[in-house]
Amino acid sequence: MAARYQLTPVLRRLARSTTTELSRQPALKQTFSRPLQRHLSTTSPRLFRKTVAACKGEFTSEKYTDLQRDARFAQVTPEHVSYFKELLGSESAVIDGVTNEAAADDIEPFNSDWMNKYRGHCKLVLKPAATEEVSKILKYCNDNMLAVVPQGGNTGLVGGSVPVFDEIVINMSRMNKIIEFDEVSGILVAEAGCILEVADQFLASKGYIFPLDLGAKGSCHIGGNLATNAGGLRLLRYGSLHGTTLGIEAVLADGTVVDDLCRLRKNNTGYDLKQLFIGAEGTIGIITKVSIQCPQRSPAQNVALFGIESYEKAQLAFREAKGQLSEILSAFELMDEGSQELVRQVTGNKSPLEEKYPFYCLIETSGSNAEHDAEKLQSFLEDVMEKEIVADGTLAENETQIRSLWSWREGITEALGHLGGVYKYDVSIPLKELYRLVEDIRARVDAAGLLGDTDDFPVRAVVGYGHMGDANLHLNVSTRRFDERVEKLLEPFIYEWIEQRQGSISAEHGLGLMKKKYIGYSRNPTMVGLMKNIKTTFDPNGILNPYKYL
Amino acid sequence: MAARYQLTPVLRRLARSTTTELSRQPALKQTFSRPLQRHLSTTSPRLFRKTVAACKGEFTSEKYTDLQRDARFAQVTPEHVSYFKELLGSESAVIDGVTNEAAADDIEPFNSDWMNKYRGHCKLVLKPAATEEVSKILKYCNDNMLAVVPQGGNTGLVGGSVPVFDEIVINMSRMNKIIEFDEVSGILVAEAGCILEVADQFLASKGYIFPLDLGAKGSCHIGGNLATNAGGLRLLRYGSLHGTTLGIEAVLADGTVVDDLCRLRKNNTGYDLKQLFIGAEGTIGIITKVSIQCPQRSPAQNVALFGIESYEKAQLAFREAKGQLSEILSAFELMDEGSQELVRQVTGNKSPLEEKYPFYCLIETSGSNAEHDAEKLQSFLEDVMEKEIVADGTLAENETQIRSLWSWREGITEALGHLGGVYKYDVSIPLKELYRLVEDIRARVDAAGLLGDTDDFPVRAVVGYGHMGDANLHLNVSTRRFDERVEKLLEPFIYEWIEQRQGSISAEHGLGLMKKKYIGYSRNPTMVGLMKNIKTTFDPNGILNPYKYL
Repeated sequence: MAARYQLTPVLRRLARSTTTELSRQPALKQTFSRPLQRHLSTTSPRLFRKTVAACKGEFTSEKYTDLQRDARFAQVTPEHVSYFKELLGSESAVIDGVTNEAAADDIEPFNSDWMNKYRGHCKLVLKPAATEEVSKILKYCNDNMLAVVPQGGNTGLVGGSVPVFDEIVINMSRMNKIIEFDEVSGILVAEAGCILEVADQFLASKGYIFPLDLGAKGSCHIGGNLATNAGGLRLLRYGSLHGTTLGIEAVLADGTVVDDLCRLRKNNTGYDLKQLFIGAEGTIGIITKVSIQCPQRSPAQNVALFGIESYEKAQLAFREAKGQLSEILSAFELMDEGSQELVRQVTGNKSPLEEKYPFYCLIETSGSNAEHDAEKLQSFLEDVMEKEIVADGTLAENETQIRSLWSWREGITEALGHLGGVYKYDVSIPLKELYRLVEDIRARVDAAGLLGDTDDFPVRAVVGYGHMGDANLHLNVSTRRFDERVEKLLEPFIYEWIEQRQGSISAEHGLGLMKKKYIGYSRNPTMVGLMKNIKTTFDPNGILNPYKYL
Repeated sequence: MAARYQLTPVLRRLARSTTTELSRQPALKQTFSRPLQRHLSTTSPRLFRKTVAACKGEFTSEKYTDLQRDARFAQVTPEHVSYFKELLGSESAVIDGVTNEAAADDIEPFNSDWMNKYRGHCKLVLKPAATEEVSKILKYCNDNMLAVVPQGGNTGLVGGSVPVFDEIVINMSRMNKIIEFDEVSGILVAEAGCILEVADQFLASKGYIFPLDLGAKGSCHIGGNLATNAGGLRLLRYGSLHGTTLGIEAVLADGTVVDDLCRLRKNNTGYDLKQLFIGAEGTIGIITKVSIQCPQRSPAQNVALFGIESYEKAQLAFREAKGQLSEILSAFELMDEGSQELVRQVTGNKSPLEEKYPFYCLIETSGSNAEHDAEKLQSFLEDVMEKEIVADGTLAENETQIRSLWSWREGITEALGHLGGVYKYDVSIPLKELYRLVEDIRARVDAAGLLGDTDDFPVRAVVGYGHMGDANLHLNVSTRRFDERVEKLLEPFIYEWIEQRQGSISAEHGLGLMKKKYIGYSRNPTMVGLMKNIKTTFDPNGILNPYKYL
């Protein structure tokens, strides 16, 4: 365990080397072959390295042999392809592997996810440029029983945006325009295929900010963000997309265009249907346009890192931060010593704090007055140290130091990746018991004799970190090699543990293909039954994103 | 028109008489025969005084002769009453006007709304004390085709919570317990019948705040707030209930209990069904419990009032306020000179500003540091006056002055009520054109020769005010007497005007009975069709709150 707390009366400023940067990748204008991973930790319960190694060769249908192609769906024929080519006109709008086998390589990126974990057999990719085209595509598919997969930036982690069998991919990347922005109200209207970072850059030029931020922002689409109800970094401050989204336009399975592109903060005229599309993962319609309330961009940002003695004290620190920093608090992240030790091992960097502590919290504030905010943060730090809630702390003094402190949080995923295989879980647990899952899993693996410092043990470490402000934990089991005993220890134990605490087996990444069969751990049969009714109401033929979600 | 702007280099402090208080009623512990009206302006398109005069005698079914009782519904029999009495046990849980005619007076308050605008023929009121009782009541009603009206605090403005014919009232007032509160996460779980002010007082004792505030808070239920998606005063700061509500428990028409009482900020496991119940006005189920994310209470509050030359400058002021006050801005209210003139006439109070201006804005900040906030507000005022966006301004220095400034906004409704009949509309309009509706209506009434200063003219004034931060306008047409020509000038012109601008005919008060037939002005046939599918899916017999909403 780490050293006992030391009450540091005067805050030490971060004056050391700022070469600790690890994973903060240059954000903009870069061509990404893979999306940025800044904060999107994967949630795969499979062994990461194993699946990466599996690579291109392995089809989802071969890995998951219980999956069967639904015989109700038609195969794509050259006649179908002709229809789509005529409809979409432009050459680049149709990638046709049906009549042209040479197109297989061009289709491959649409057939697999960025982790190479899922791979489909799709032979036709359509890239509509307008809502009307989406509508005609879907009407035709519905009439001809052709299954489809809506696809945004394809940055998902649960296999939701790639085909399983020969579903047609409807890729939204050509619908990428910003339609309008009201500089007084801050309401942005854009097409679904608009890349999150592009939207945010546009907003930055107007003094506004997109109310969502996540690691994949250089690739992900805002339509996909809504479809998966992305959480990310700004949720603590700006709330969920269910609150910030004002309207959507979507196309239903039969081609019906649902125009609910409301540009109003208040509109109490009937059921708020757009909410169903947020988080539906493309199973009841394809989102084509988005209207969203954007907050003003905060000019001032401050970041502090603390050492904390216990999870109980981390909770106290969180409570004090909410109270004292209140409206300027924009992130409260938790990292355990295990996760920080891995970062130290991989990077060789020196910790920002002199001693080791069982827990660390990273606090970020964003406000309109840098001086006020720094003052608040500093007096907060003094207060929590005086109350012995926090044992030590450091405050970044400039942008470089801010990035350096963030690297201790953001670098965990990459460090884990360097060290070997890792079982990753992204879950919500009521705050009181959030960290207990890590302790229980660590004890469980240890008791089985599988956890240790030498090569004799398959498990190197069980660590936890995450968005504490959202009660969102990333549990990671770092392994030296694949060992079936480890997998058996983890599942279904973890899901049952979460179910008992009324947590969520998927905090922010959704169900996709990966967690379809686990929904019962977080939703009761009544809820699942109602969901199935909704699905049937909106997509009676089931052509939208089959084999997934429910 | 008001005087030209005057650039006041030094802000004048509000040092005058603070006897301008008009409508800020003492909030707590008072026994309200009627709910407080602090900010809930009525939206009735009918003549207010006229309907008040109509009083107890007039049944909704007599006023709206196009309404017919649905013959599919059974009449309540003594056998039904016996069942409910046995089920609910306690005497006070059943108000039986079926077998006991003397109970009619006791039933009256449940049969009419607080404006005496709607009145039903209900003869049976049920007050369940637990979800299981609600479930059994609904199952029985569904099996026996008995129509019901879910009722919270009955503070609605559109006739949504009172029966039209002989529907059974299910009043939720006995389900009023606070179930749990997590002091670290700020998540409150309470029964639906809990009064908003009680919940907020409880939260205040913990340093938290309910993320919703409205005039009827002394009477309204949090379940009713969710069922009507109440907007109110804190929306600009804390967002809508679609964002803050984490979970609900609800009972469907057939008695099925939907347990979606999630206590997590993040839970991406399937369609977010709870969202459908928010704003459904009791038409697809009865909300029995609520889980909601509550923010920390801000210790510091500041209020300023400005005089502004034009609506264009009011928009600029709003934009600057958002930018400079950003995270501490908690209200931005607009009042036109016409509305303030009415307040002066009725109260005899002197304006807080020396000159008259076409527009006034009231700005409120809530933050964690009083000194910082005052400093921000003052430098904001200096800045907008220097830029000639704002012509004059005053800053409250204490709680009394804060109340005094608020009285110029909150007193409008009462002043209008004193002066005669008033046609009231509560609408959302994109911010750019928000005030143009008032100008257009004023010009229209004037052109028809109906607007003037003497008794020859039926219309005294056309004024506008509202929650500018939410693009929510209250348009009021103050009249001296009922004149059919006025009504014909206003409707459907106003609804068409709003439709053309993609506004909402109901910003925050819902559809109820009043606006059921106008939904087409804010929702297209596709949307209404989908909504009807949802209604049928959840309530195939249509027993829940019939004759309303859709």
